[in-house]
Amino acid sequence: MTHTGLAAQLLKAAGATVGDIVRIQKGHETHTGVLMPRHEFSDEAIITLKLPSGYNIGLRVTQGSTVTIVSKKETKGDVRKKLPRGQGRKDVAVISTGGTIASYVDYRTGAVHPAKSADELVFSVPELMDLCNVRAKVLYSILSENMTVAHWQGLARAVAEELNSGAVGAIVPHGTDTMGFTAAALSFMLKNLTGPVVCVGSQRSSDRPSSDATMNLLAATRLCVDADLGEVVVMMHGEPSDSYCLAHRGTKVRKMHSSRRDAFASMNIQPIARVEGSEVRFSGHHLKRSEGPVEVRDKIDGRASLLHFYPGFEEEHFDLIANHVKGVVVAGTGLGHVSDPIISSIRKAVKRGVHVVVTTQCLQGTVNLNVYSTGRDMVSAGALPVGDMLPETAYVKLMWAMGQTDDYVEVNKLMLTNIAGELTDRREL
Amino acid sequence: MTHTGLAAQLLKAAGATVGDIVRIQKGHETHTGVLMPRHEFSDEAIITLKLPSGYNIGLRVTQGSTVTIVSKKETKGDVRKKLPRGQGRKDVAVISTGGTIASYVDYRTGAVHPAKSADELVFSVPELMDLCNVRAKVLYSILSENMTVAHWQGLARAVAEELNSGAVGAIVPHGTDTMGFTAAALSFMLKNLTGPVVCVGSQRSSDRPSSDATMNLLAATRLCVDADLGEVVVMMHGEPSDSYCLAHRGTKVRKMHSSRRDAFASMNIQPIARVEGSEVRFSGHHLKRSEGPVEVRDKIDGRASLLHFYPGFEEEHFDLIANHVKGVVVAGTGLGHVSDPIISSIRKAVKRGVHVVVTTQCLQGTVNLNVYSTGRDMVSAGALPVGDMLPETAYVKLMWAMGQTDDYVEVNKLMLTNIAGELTDRREL
Repeated sequence: MTHTGLAAQLLKAAGATVGDIVRIQKGHETHTGVLMPRHEFSDEAIITLKLPSGYNIGLRVTQGSTVTIVSKKETKGDVRKKLPRGQGRKDVAVISTGGTIASYVDYRTGAVHPAKSADELVFSVPELMDLCNVRAKVLYSILSENMTVAHWQGLARAVAEELNSGAVGAIVPHGTDTMGFTAAALSFMLKNLTGPVVCVGSQRSSDRPSSDATMNLLAATRLCVDADLGEVVVMMHGEPSDSYCLAHRGTKVRKMHSSRRDAFASMNIQPIARVEGSEVRFSGHHLKRSEGPVEVRDKIDGRASLLHFYPGFEEEHFDLIANHVKGVVVAGTGLGHVSDPIISSIRKAVKRGVHVVVTTQCLQGTVNLNVYSTGRDMVSAGALPVGDMLPETAYVKLMWAMGQTDDYVEVNKLMLTNIAGELTDRREL
Repeated sequence: MTHTGLAAQLLKAAGATVGDIVRIQKGHETHTGVLMPRHEFSDEAIITLKLPSGYNIGLRVTQGSTVTIVSKKETKGDVRKKLPRGQGRKDVAVISTGGTIASYVDYRTGAVHPAKSADELVFSVPELMDLCNVRAKVLYSILSENMTVAHWQGLARAVAEELNSGAVGAIVPHGTDTMGFTAAALSFMLKNLTGPVVCVGSQRSSDRPSSDATMNLLAATRLCVDADLGEVVVMMHGEPSDSYCLAHRGTKVRKMHSSRRDAFASMNIQPIARVEGSEVRFSGHHLKRSEGPVEVRDKIDGRASLLHFYPGFEEEHFDLIANHVKGVVVAGTGLGHVSDPIISSIRKAVKRGVHVVVTTQCLQGTVNLNVYSTGRDMVSAGALPVGDMLPETAYVKLMWAMGQTDDYVEVNKLMLTNIAGELTDRREL
C-alpha cells in the first residue's frame, strides 16, 4: 500500500520513495534505514524502516518530524546481483517452500510477494550472507495449508542432496500453519544427518515493523554454521520480544498460538537449543552430526486419518473414515479414551486390518490404557497406545511406517520404536 | 489391593486393617490417620493414611517403623449415617456424574468403586459438611468419555432445580476427560445463575497418596458458599502441589495434560478465580449472582461434527461427514486455514444449508480469515470464523444454537454473539 496522511506528506516533501535509505528525526530520536512500503495493517502515521541490523522499526511520525534522504535506491541490479561467495565460509542450503517468511519486498515497487527465485529469497535477508555462503533454492512457493505428503518427499530429497554435497546445514523457510507436520515428516524420512535441518517460519511478513523473519533466519543460520546437531528442528521466537529463538525437536513441536511470534512450543520435552545472538545453548539430549551420508527413507502411504474424539462423536463417523483408510490415529480424551460405542468400531476396524493408534488430545502427558476399564477395553479391541507422541506426529509417523512395510505387526512395532525422538521414555503415571 | 512386603508385616503385627485409625512412627515423624487400602500403582513399602485434614499422605515405611492402632474402624453404620444438617449453614448441592472424583473408598472392604448413593459420595469427603449443608445426589455414575448430549440436558435441569430451591451453589463432580465439554454445555444452557456451578474432577482417585479430590472439592465448596459468582466454572489444582486451586470459565477451559493434577488451563483468558485455603481471589471480569430464577435453555441439536484439518485431509473425508450433519466446526491451522480442495467442499456444504464454523487448532489466539487469500476464499465460500472460541466450545455452542432456532442466519448470528464468555473481545492481530 502507498503511504497516506502525514507520513505521505513528509515523504513527499523529502522526495523519498520506497527503497531509498532515509533518516527520520523525531524529537531526540534519529533512525536511518531503508524505507519500507506501508503495510495494510499499519496505522497511517507509521513509517517502517529496515535498519542496518536487518530488523524493522515502525516509527510513528508527528508534526515536527523530518525525513531526509541519505541515498536513493539503486535503480537496477541491486537486488538481482549474483550471490557473493566468501572465502573460508561454510555453505548453508536455503530450500524455500513458501509462506510468510519467504515473502519478498520489492523495493522498486513496494509490493510484497512470495520469493520466486533463489536470489529474491536470499536478498530479502541479506544478513545471512555475512555468516555463510548461501546455496538458495525455491523448491515450492505455496501456502503451507496446501502442503501434501508428496511435498514432504520432494523436500526430504532436496535436503539430503544439499547435505550430501557439502552444505553444513539446511534451512527450510516454511509457512507456519503446517510447519510442525513437515518437521515431523522430515524427522522420519531423513537418517544420519550430517548437520541441522532447520524449518523456519515467521508470523509477521518482512515488511511489517514487528517482523520476526530476520531474527528467526539468523538463528537458523547460526545453528547450521556453529552447532554440532544432526536433527530436524523448528526455529522460532522464544518469547514475544526479539530476545532469543528456540530450536524445537521436529517430532515434538506444535503451533500453539494463531498469531504470537512465540507460537511454537515443544510438548513434553524442553526445546533442544536456545539461540541468543551468536550464542547457541543446548539443553538435554540431542543427536550430533553424523559422518554421513544422509539417507532418505521417503516412502510413505498416505491412506491414514487423524480423528479427534469428543462427546457426541458417532460410530458412523468413525466407521465411514476407517472404511476409507489403512490407518487411523485417534486423539482420545485424557489418557487416550473414547466412548464405548467407538470401542466397538475400533474392534471392527482392527479386524479388517486397519491400524488404530491412540494418542491424547490433551497434547501434554502420555496415553495410558491400563488405568481405567475403558482403556483396557480399547487395548483388547486392538488399539495401539503410543506413549507421549503428539497426535499430529503419530499421524505423520503412521503414514511413514505404512510406507516402510506392508506387515501389520511390523508397522505396529515401528510405531512403538523411537525413531526420531517422538517418544519420551519418562512416564508420569 | 492388599498390602505386601514390609508394609503387610507391620500392619499384621499391629493387627491393623483398612479403615482403622492408626499411628505410624518413622524416625522422628509421627502421623495419625485412617489406614487406606494399598493402591495398585503404589510401591509395596508405601502405607497411605487419610489425615484428619482430608488429605492423603503416603509413607514409605522402613525397618524400625512402627504401626499402632488408635481405634478400630466402626463396623456398622459409620459411613451410611444420615447427613448432618447444621443450623445457620448454607445449602450446597452436590450433583455427581461419576468419574475418578466420585470414587468411594469402602473402608470395610478396602475396595474403590463409583459412589452409588448420595451418602457414599459425601462421606468420601466428610470435610464438606463442616462448610455447608450438603444436598447430595448421584445423577449419573459414568465415565465421562461416555457422556452424551442428553446427559448435559439432564444435568442442566438438575442444577437449575437445586439453585431454584435454595442451594447457594452447585458442585458437579465429573470425570476429567470431557469435563470441559460439559462445562461449556452448562454455560450455554443455564441463564441467570443465582450462584456458582462448579464442575470439579480429580486426576488421582481418593485412595491414592497424591489424590487431589479433597482439595478440589473443598475449593469448589468455598466458591459456592463465599463467592459472588454467577457462572459455570471448572475447579482444579493450579499447580502440581497442593498449594491452590483455580476456577476456569466453563467456555474457556481445556484439559491440557493427561495426568498432571494441574491439567486444566484457561485458554486466551486468565482463570476467573484463585482459591487458596479459605481465600477466594477474583481476577478480571466475571458475572455476579443474579436474583434468579435460573432459566434452563436445554434444547440442543446433536447433528454436528468437529473436524481437525491437517495435511493430507481429504475432501471425501469432509464431504462424508458434512453430508451427515447440519453443522461442522472446523479446527483449521494457524489463523483458521484449510487447503484449497477443502474450501470447495465447504462451499458445497454451505450451499446445502450446512453451517461451517471456523476455529483454530492452535487453541490459543483468534482466527482471522482476512489476512491471507486462503482465509478470504473460505469466507466467500460461506465459512463463519468465530474469533478466539475454542474448537470444543464452538462444537458445543453450534449444537446449542441449532437447538434454539431453525433459521440459518439466526444460528450464525448466535455463534457470533457472546453468550457465556466464549468470545474474548481483544484481538491480537
